[in-house]
This record gives sequence, C-alpha cells and structure tokens, in this order.
Amino acid sequence: MTAKINHIAIVVEDIDKALTVYRDALGLPLQAVHDEPDEAVRVAYMPTPAGEVELIQPTTDDSGVAKYLAKRGEGLHHVCLEVESIEESLARMQAQGLEILGQPRTNKRGDKYVFVHPKSAHGVLIELYEKA
Amino acid sequence: MTAKINHIAIVVEDIDKALTVYRDALGLPLQAVHDEPDEAVRVAYMPTPAGEVELIQPTTDDSGVAKYLAKRGEGLHHVCLEVESIEESLARMQAQGLEILGQPRTNKRGDKYVFVHPKSAHGVLIELYEKA
Repeated sequence: MTAKINHIAIVVEDIDKALTVYRDALGLPLQAVHDEPDEAVRVAYMPTPAGEVELIQPTTDDSGVAKYLAKRGEGLHHVCLEVESIEESLARMQAQGLEILGQPRTNKRGDKYVFVHPKSAHGVLIELYEKA
Repeated sequence: MTAKINHIAIVVEDIDKALTVYRDALGLPLQAVHDEPDEAVRVAYMPTPAGEVELIQPTTDDSGVAKYLAKRGEGLHHVCLEVESIEESLARMQAQGLEILGQPRTNKRGDKYVFVHPKSAHGVLIELYEKA
C-alpha cells in the first residue's frame, strides 16, 4: 500500500497567461488543454516524469472552483494522491474521524476519486484517486 | 529541457499529528524526520514513486515558515520543480520580468535552488531545484 503524487492542480484566472510562466519560463511540458464541462473548468495538462501539474480555469461563475478563485485568488487548489484502494483509504480515514467530501465517484475512464476536506488534511484539499 | 515535480511542501503545526493523516490514513511512505536548523524547520520526508511530499514544522517563531504559518495557517507552502539548468530557467524568467527571490543558493549536497515569488507564478511559491 503506497500512495504517490498523481497531480497538483493550480487554479488560475487565465490558462494562456499562466502557460507563459509554467510552460515557457519554468519548462513544464504541455500535453493538452481541454474543456471539462462536467467540472466547469478548462484544464492544461502538464505531465512530468514525477506527477502532473494541472492549471485549471473556471468556465462558469458558479462552480466550486470559480468560487474558490473569487474568494482566495489564484494558487494551489488541490493535491491528488493516487492510492491502490480508495475503499481501504476511506476506511482508515473514517476510523480517524476525518471528513470526506461526499462519496467516491467514477469518471469516464472508470477511475474512482473522492476528496478529503482541507480541515482534515492540515489545510490542503486532498483528492484520492484509484485507477481502474 | 523538461521540468518535473521534485516535491511539494506542506506547513503544519505538529508533524506527529500530521503523520497520523498523511502516513497512517493516506498511506504516504515516511522515510525520515529530520531537524534542518539552517531553515529552522523539522521536516518529514515522504518520497513517493512520483515526487516527494514534505511536511514542514517551524522550530523557531521568527523564520519565514513560522510567519507564514502564523498568518495563513496550515496548508501548502511551496511546490518544488526540478529543472536541468537553473541558470537557463532564470534567464527565461527574467526575460519575462518574473520576480525571483534572491540569488540561487547551494545546499550541503551541492544542489542549487532558488524561489520564485508567488505573485509571479499565479499564487504558488515555486522552488526551482537543480541537482548537482
């Protein structure tokens, strides 16, 4: 049972502007930019040999990400840890009384994911991810 | 020229408490906990197959990390990107007018590092790291 970093997600006002920093100056490789209508965000996927950086830009005004940006400004949104079994991780978290945000969901690829409240993870919104 | 995630650093009040979440519940592997007197922090090193998670706890009241914790509370402190050449990265950043925090320094292992101001990196304190 070993977790690893899957990605970190940084919320930005404008992906194109942020790419001038993260791709052009810092040298992260850009794989693709996609609209993800289910999450009301546009995402720049920047996979590295050691975990992915994602720049996320809200595409509506009323999503969770949009509200986060309006309230807190640009910056880290969440850290995604890939685990072997979300069920086992959840059992351990629930035994500790940690606050999970809703139930695990399954994305189009069949992967499972769930979020842990920042107040239960020392100030960081953690996504747990289990590949199908 | 490809950057990759080297580590992410999360500032916490108490490493032992944070380990109950990050090691015991989330399943990150703990390699070691060391005092780093030069930085006035205690660090839990949690290397994963895809970048390292570091929990950092200030050991004095007057360091930069201690002030950050007092002002902002627990949460992500910085993201470290490993690059092939800090000099080349700095040249690109300076050409864009991005704000670098001081000059590159060299640690005990001979590795070079420098920080980029969060206002120049869309709200994230970025450390650039070049292995010797």
